Amino acid sequence: MNRTTVESYLPFWNKITETEKEILHTAEKRSYPKGSVISYGEENCIGLLVVISGRLRVSTVAEEGREISLLRLLERDICLFSATCIFRSIQSDLIVTAEEDTQVWHIPVSAYKKVMEQSAVVANYTTELMASYFSDMVWLMDQVINKKLDSRLAAFLLEESELEGQEQIEMTQEQIAHYLGSAREVVSRMLKYFQQEGMVRSERGCIRLLDQERLRETARESLR
Amino acid sequence: MNRTTVESYLPFWNKITETEKEILHTAEKRSYPKGSVISYGEENCIGLLVVISGRLRVSTVAEEGREISLLRLLERDICLFSATCIFRSIQSDLIVTAEEDTQVWHIPVSAYKKVMEQSAVVANYTTELMASYFSDMVWLMDQVINKKLDSRLAAFLLEESELEGQEQIEMTQEQIAHYLGSAREVVSRMLKYFQQEGMVRSERGCIRLLDQERLRETARESLR
Repeated sequence: MNRTTVESYLPFWNKITETEKEILHTAEKRSYPKGSVISYGEENCIGLLVVISGRLRVSTVAEEGREISLLRLLERDICLFSATCIFRSIQSDLIVTAEEDTQVWHIPVSAYKKVMEQSAVVANYTTELMASYFSDMVWLMDQVINKKLDSRLAAFLLEESELEGQEQIEMTQEQIAHYLGSAREVVSRMLKYFQQEGMVRSERGCIRLLDQERLRETARESLR
Repeated sequence: MNRTTVESYLPFWNKITETEKEILHTAEKRSYPKGSVISYGEENCIGLLVVISGRLRVSTVAEEGREISLLRLLERDICLFSATCIFRSIQSDLIVTAEEDTQVWHIPVSAYKKVMEQSAVVANYTTELMASYFSDMVWLMDQVINKKLDSRLAAFLLEESELEGQEQIEMTQEQIAHYLGSAREVVSRMLKYFQQEGMVRSERGCIRLLDQERLRETARESLR
């Protein structure tokens, strides 16, 4: 039964040898209920997981104990992060959780490692996977860093409002951008977002604060 | 001349075939003056660079046009990010810059790709490299999100230096970690990052401050 299906989840299947296929046929189906922690750090290197259905979350624990979501893996995605012992260089405490009831193909570490070591095709495929995860991280970093702007902007609006003792800030987007060391286009887009959320209303030459509580939350909130 | 030396920069050298060695012997030495942009995004896929001396910076452009430093590559590090066309999945506009006068071995994309495609050893080595860059990104993300330890450490170093009236701090990493309520490994890695950034130099039993202005900036702001 297993034999007929794991193959279709591994794009390199037709390019590997019969022996290598045999080794990978040790893959088994596994199910994880929503919310279960599947793998935690290096001590829990259970194997590669290929998502059949459901969703996996890869996260790391920040110093202060808070979890940071790094990646989400959907159908047909391959999770290397439950097999980090394959890679000398991954030292982070990565956690893999099932975000929904999730079914996977589980490929044992020893099996995958053996095939990867001898097959250039599988090794190249793995490099490409890792490259795509790297790329996702760059994108995420970009989002996180830019997202700082929302809290900075919220804090700025609140401060100005308090200083002036009124609920409207008589500044142009250009001026605000200048204060925040940002570009007008960026501030403009963020204000549009704030407006969509009902936090402010942009009027001619001024910005009216509509929901100070939400703004305060946004100013406080950590970047996520 | 070249033949005798590029080899020592490629840890897999003894595990590849003579033909593969021939292909990689197309590597050439190149020099880049401080500040030069070596490679920019996919359109500028010049090849792999192995740092002989100097320092490379890998960055990406945030939406607002600001550059975000992602990685720094020092002596013997291998830069894949000037060869991202090898990887289908890297879509980010990565920029590689020489932060100092830098000398590298330049391996043409076609040469490396050819060897990687046929050699499981080289492909696995590349996966491992990519995994280590992924791991660095996870670490950096953690720092950016927590954005505390870097500024706390910078502030601590500056204070200590002022207290002692000298530019070196005679404390172990263990002691510093204790003061900051952190772990030695974490402080150690952050000091390594500071060192890569040219802000400090770790010496035996002490840390020498090299760039107080940058440290002051870091103490005020936070990593990005």
